[in-house]
Amino acid sequence: MQHFLTTESLSKDQLTNILDTAESFTNVDGGTVKKIPLLRGKTIVNLFFEASTRTRTTFELAAKRLSADVLNINISSSATVKGESLLDTLRNLEAMHVDMFIIRHQDSGAAEFLSRHISPHISVINAGDGRHAHPTQAMLDMYTIRKMKGSFDNLKVAIVGDLLHSRVARSQIHALKTLGAKEIRIIAPRTLLPARIESLGVKVFHKMEAGLKDVDVIVMLRLQKERMQGALLPSEHEYFNLFGLTQERVALADNDVIVMHPGPINRGVEISSEVADGPQSVILQQVSYSIAVRMAIMSMLAGHQP
Amino acid sequence: MQHFLTTESLSKDQLTNILDTAESFTNVDGGTVKKIPLLRGKTIVNLFFEASTRTRTTFELAAKRLSADVLNINISSSATVKGESLLDTLRNLEAMHVDMFIIRHQDSGAAEFLSRHISPHISVINAGDGRHAHPTQAMLDMYTIRKMKGSFDNLKVAIVGDLLHSRVARSQIHALKTLGAKEIRIIAPRTLLPARIESLGVKVFHKMEAGLKDVDVIVMLRLQKERMQGALLPSEHEYFNLFGLTQERVALADNDVIVMHPGPINRGVEISSEVADGPQSVILQQVSYSIAVRMAIMSMLAGHQP
Amino acid sequence: MQHFLTTESLSKDQLTNILDTAESFTNVDGGTVKKIPLLRGKTIVNLFFEASTRTRTTFELAAKRLSADVLNINISSSATVKGESLLDTLRNLEAMHVDMFIIRHQDSGAAEFLSRHISPHISVINAGDGRHAHPTQAMLDMYTIRKMKGSFDNLKVAIVGDLLHSRVARSQIHALKTLGAKEIRIIAPRTLLPARIESLGVKVFHKMEAGLKDVDVIVMLRLQKERMQGALLPSEHEYFNLFGLTQERVALADNDVIVMHPGPINRGVEISSEVADGPQSVILQQVSYSIAVRMAIMSMLAGHQP
Repeated sequence: MQHFLTTESLSKDQLTNILDTAESFTNVDGGTVKKIPLLRGKTIVNLFFEASTRTRTTFELAAKRLSADVLNINISSSATVKGESLLDTLRNLEAMHVDMFIIRHQDSGAAEFLSRHISPHISVINAGDGRHAHPTQAMLDMYTIRKMKGSFDNLKVAIVGDLLHSRVARSQIHALKTLGAKEIRIIAPRTLLPARIESLGVKVFHKMEAGLKDVDVIVMLRLQKERMQGALLPSEHEYFNLFGLTQERVALADNDVIVMHPGPINRGVEISSEVADGPQSVILQQVSYSIAVRMAIMSMLAGHQP
Repeated sequence: MQHFLTTESLSKDQLTNILDTAESFTNVDGGTVKKIPLLRGKTIVNLFFEASTRTRTTFELAAKRLSADVLNINISSSATVKGESLLDTLRNLEAMHVDMFIIRHQDSGAAEFLSRHISPHISVINAGDGRHAHPTQAMLDMYTIRKMKGSFDNLKVAIVGDLLHSRVARSQIHALKTLGAKEIRIIAPRTLLPARIESLGVKVFHKMEAGLKDVDVIVMLRLQKERMQGALLPSEHEYFNLFGLTQERVALADNDVIVMHPGPINRGVEISSEVADGPQSVILQQVSYSIAVRMAIMSMLAGHQP
Repeated sequence: MQHFLTTESLSKDQLTNILDTAESFTNVDGGTVKKIPLLRGKTIVNLFFEASTRTRTTFELAAKRLSADVLNINISSSATVKGESLLDTLRNLEAMHVDMFIIRHQDSGAAEFLSRHISPHISVINAGDGRHAHPTQAMLDMYTIRKMKGSFDNLKVAIVGDLLHSRVARSQIHALKTLGAKEIRIIAPRTLLPARIESLGVKVFHKMEAGLKDVDVIVMLRLQKERMQGALLPSEHEYFNLFGLTQERVALADNDVIVMHPGPINRGVEISSEVADGPQSVILQQVSYSIAVRMAIMSMLAGHQP
């Protein structure tokens, strides 16, 4: 692998290899190993066109634990001030002999666009592009599921919420299918469903009660309030009544169900505090594992480099 | 010590231990030692809800000289964008397996709140919370006083200015009392005095001429213009006439008096340039010593960690 | 050298020494060497009063490749919030025992002002001050020219565009003269020419066709739109018609001409995309070489330090 742009194009072996490598960066207590010199002398650029404390921070921590130098570039506030194009910004950073770009961008396809125009010795990691993909988030979710459930065989997974705007869900669905999950369910209001979602091989539900029955994993999506345009939803309160995850609804799932969320959570909108902080929640474990998973992807890309 | 939240709860031995440890990080020329590997592999998060170049920078320098990795998170500009609560932000950073939080927050009690909710292996340092405390500033002030005066016995110290809004003064008074200063005087207009200040064991003055007589240390407080609400003061000019530190007023103190200020100074408001830049001023030494003192506190907390 | 403020005051030997040192930091493939421990334990402060992703980033990369610790301080957004003067900001940073300041400021003379007030053990590098100088940019341009052309003897160089506002051009002219370039031409509209420019020993042209004839190097200047005040120019389109660099105009120069630009480029304003991305362009090489040149200047200043 030179780049890591989407979970869609990867084989089961490749995905499993990432999970195994991440495992090797994890301590017995679930934390990540302390500083190792694997990427010493490498320069990694966090190129964020959208603000994201959590994702940026975990990439920065992952890079530093691999002993790389990290440059944080927040493009919205600096580079395009002088009217430079995305490609010119890229070419200039490339000329500085950096080794890896972590890119987050509001436009679908931005990471793939950069990867097509970049020198062969530089790697691109997609940290979220528009509504398209967020593959490192999906991989840390897969890591969390494997850690909690042992394997993907026989798993029933429900993904709940704003599928229309969710790059996370797209990447999860591809990864879950490739890794062999038995059944993937989508639970969403009709207004928040992308067209032809069934073609991805998922079952669509419009009621929590039916969709959550007997599932092993519930993946809640953040209600992307800032992205909602027009009258897709009546109100947050009504959304919670129809699609919010409550303890009563969790009880419909398998006894050992785990509850996941990419964060930041909207308490009382898509999930109740009782569930978010409850015994089935693995939301903070997801954050915790995110560093090892991102270390794994970074080091595997770097290993490919000349 | 797991946390460093206030000078109030600490014994004379504990405060002296911090000063002695800071001394060990200082060169013969008064600068701090160069990089040492004491905190290698540790991750320290500067979590600033209020901007402060000076405090943030000296903490960052202190952490880097101890070879720690530093994450700067300016919450006002990023994390709460998505509406996450303080506790959720904390939980997420905690899940990233960081080792220490340096927190500055506009609300009194914020650092203590976080320390009560945090995992036992993580330390919290209070870098200023509301009007409550700023204990690392107080400790660098104590360090400066001991360096200049040798000991606290027989010392008369005057703290001058906006006591009402000053977290620095509260922390200084507790530390000075514990370390055995002979007499602590407060000089302030009635409108800038907190209620029941005498209960802290200080003498209150409302005139510079009386309060400064024969003191060994003058601690000027910054006039927190941005915090002043309502008509607490007639004008900056009149404030300077009544409570500004001039060379004539310095002459009322002991011949060897030192003049301190936590910075940034308002020239011509609480202090004249002549005094700020004069021979009695140790204002820049305070900044200089701040790195060794912060290194001391960080390394002592880390030493407590498993 | 204690400071690096302008190319004006330096001898041919000094300039050549910088270029030779930069060469020693360059790989056979034109990239910079990976991390070396030359400045380990040193603290370098990027003190930027004007935003500049490119310049700030290359200085940060250069410092990190020399193993220094880097502090980024963006003054417009933080330090002067509390109304502190430039000199007080400097004194405070100085008290933190930093070793080097990289300063960019909108006022001509700011770097020189700081250098006059700073302790003897601290170095100042001018990263651009008002309309005055940008000497590290000029040195990386000299490096690029020497790399491409072998030497400065017999070289005809044309500098094209907004000379009035260009600190880059001033520094280039001084460096080119000292290094022995045969002929320096200025091509600019009368409204964008500083008074008495001829006194620097350059030939002034007002038409591209005459000025570009047989030159070996074309240096395009960025049209500093944000600095233009009043009606100095009719329109961007007309500017391009009169002074934009097109492939037809490049053809007037020497067959082996190189085209340079300090970036970021305004495509279709001062330069056509065809030229910027064409075979004569060395614009990205300039960026690439900038790290080695800045490493050279930093390490030479540090070598002078006690």
